[in-house]
Amino acid sequence: VSGEFERIQKIAQALGPQAAGLLDDCAILPTGDGRLVVSTDSSVEGVHFRLDWLRHREVGWRAAASALSDLAAEGATPAAVLAAVVVPPSATDDELVALMTGVGGAAGSVNARVVGGDLSRGPAWVVTITVLGWTKHAVTRAGARPGDRLWVTGVLGGARAALEAWMRGSEPATDARAAFTHPVPRIDAGRTLATAGARAMLDLSDGLGGDVRHLADASGVAVELDVDAVPVASACLEEARRLGISPQQFAAEGGEDFELLAALPAEFDADSAMAFQRRSGIALTRVGTVAAGSGVRATLAGTSLALEGFDHFR
Amino acid sequence: VSGEFERIQKIAQALGPQAAGLLDDCAILPTGDGRLVVSTDSSVEGVHFRLDWLRHREVGWRAAASALSDLAAEGATPAAVLAAVVVPPSATDDELVALMTGVGGAAGSVNARVVGGDLSRGPAWVVTITVLGWTKHAVTRAGARPGDRLWVTGVLGGARAALEAWMRGSEPATDARAAFTHPVPRIDAGRTLATAGARAMLDLSDGLGGDVRHLADASGVAVELDVDAVPVASACLEEARRLGISPQQFAAEGGEDFELLAALPAEFDADSAMAFQRRSGIALTRVGTVAAGSGVRATLAGTSLALEGFDHFR
Repeated sequence: VSGEFERIQKIAQALGPQAAGLLDDCAILPTGDGRLVVSTDSSVEGVHFRLDWLRHREVGWRAAASALSDLAAEGATPAAVLAAVVVPPSATDDELVALMTGVGGAAGSVNARVVGGDLSRGPAWVVTITVLGWTKHAVTRAGARPGDRLWVTGVLGGARAALEAWMRGSEPATDARAAFTHPVPRIDAGRTLATAGARAMLDLSDGLGGDVRHLADASGVAVELDVDAVPVASACLEEARRLGISPQQFAAEGGEDFELLAALPAEFDADSAMAFQRRSGIALTRVGTVAAGSGVRATLAGTSLALEGFDHFR
Repeated sequence: VSGEFERIQKIAQALGPQAAGLLDDCAILPTGDGRLVVSTDSSVEGVHFRLDWLRHREVGWRAAASALSDLAAEGATPAAVLAAVVVPPSATDDELVALMTGVGGAAGSVNARVVGGDLSRGPAWVVTITVLGWTKHAVTRAGARPGDRLWVTGVLGGARAALEAWMRGSEPATDARAAFTHPVPRIDAGRTLATAGARAMLDLSDGLGGDVRHLADASGVAVELDVDAVPVASACLEEARRLGISPQQFAAEGGEDFELLAALPAEFDADSAMAFQRRSGIALTRVGTVAAGSGVRATLAGTSLALEGFDHFR
């Protein structure tokens, strides 16, 4: 049994020309007046969420927001959301309506509508969200060039702080819990960064360490990651201390923050970042540099560091 | 706990203007040069299919073909398929590749490509297929008018014949098994009927009895269904005899044939149907008439008949 990446490669190989772009976050379809961007993602009870941790409404919000985040990373404007929900026998109508209210809330927060879906019976909750959006020019993860700089929106590590607390049997701090249950798809930020010339972009779901590697591999470049510079959610401090690692490493290895990672040309400088922050109210922090070659070199306090990937909770 | 229809109504009520058209088979989004038609459907192991009955490749074909069938019923031309697959821990890479090869085969059979998807772990196989297509003018299930006639493509009851055989522990006849495992999305037929003036159309997934009711309810009309006229798959004969009902009733109560049901104005006559059959090689049979009022009146051999709905296997 292989990892997800290897499995997708095997599928792409088996399908040949029948398939296209299976390893991308989104499908990009040319249309008469721009590009249609589509993405689909499943959230599975016991794998992506647990109902002793999350309310049903939060499950729905999180599933929809994380799918919409894929559109943000393309610089696209969301239009529509579809939700295919597998409902276990024990579920009540109120739970289902609460879950779908969360889906509708996340969609509404970015002016998208819930236009369709499907309900099935099954052994556990599975929420598969498909999102559709439009853009004139899609930004993929493949396009970073040597000399570009890497920027991230917001602060990282909050979602992981919540997970670590739950896994040791505690209730997370309020801000950590909110980071996990109520991620905000960075739609406006994605559009602004695309307009500012972003050459590659993705949303942080596998942790900065993992996602920087995806960007480097897809773009055929190397990345120097300055872990000291990683913007840290305050909720990380206590959890990082418990694990005996720095808050920056904790944040860089934490997944599912759904902030954006963008490669921008060097002309996008600190002044450009300040202008972005003033306009959007969202922090934009430089965390690395793109170089010729391949692979990721991460350094913390002058020492190289091997960052672990993030694979949900285990 | 309510039925699927009541649950969707509750969701639509809770979401209010955030939702649109949740009870339709497909979402229809206006674009610069036509309409984008989108639909999403989950197939769940143990609910929609069993792996002691179907091979993985057949599961994938069936999931994709049944979703593409929703596009056929709108008169749309498929463009792209996305597959979000939840994979149980016991699954092998070969099984996953076989399943996706089935998805790719169904997509390729209608010139659509598999453009994206998602892989997750989970307690059972769940295959959620999202299909995208284009049309100038979408045909919904709401639009039938008194005086229209109802037509169905192909023959009905084959998929049910396979299910009945499996459920009593037998291997189905070859043609019954093929009807269940290898449904053919009626894309060309759907486009032809749309061009011929179809006022309402849907694909037969809940059985003719159930789907005629959906058409009547959505269109605000009554339907007189002539069960004697229902075109019957030859595989029905033995299974109907075992159940002690007529093959026509057996076929009208069997679901998941994925043939098309269309309401056409009276000008579309027997000659038009013959022309359709010559062009497409697919049978087109008149099975009823649309009238003012509401509800479905089904008759068999001059006697009124209450048709049961179809809800997968129980």
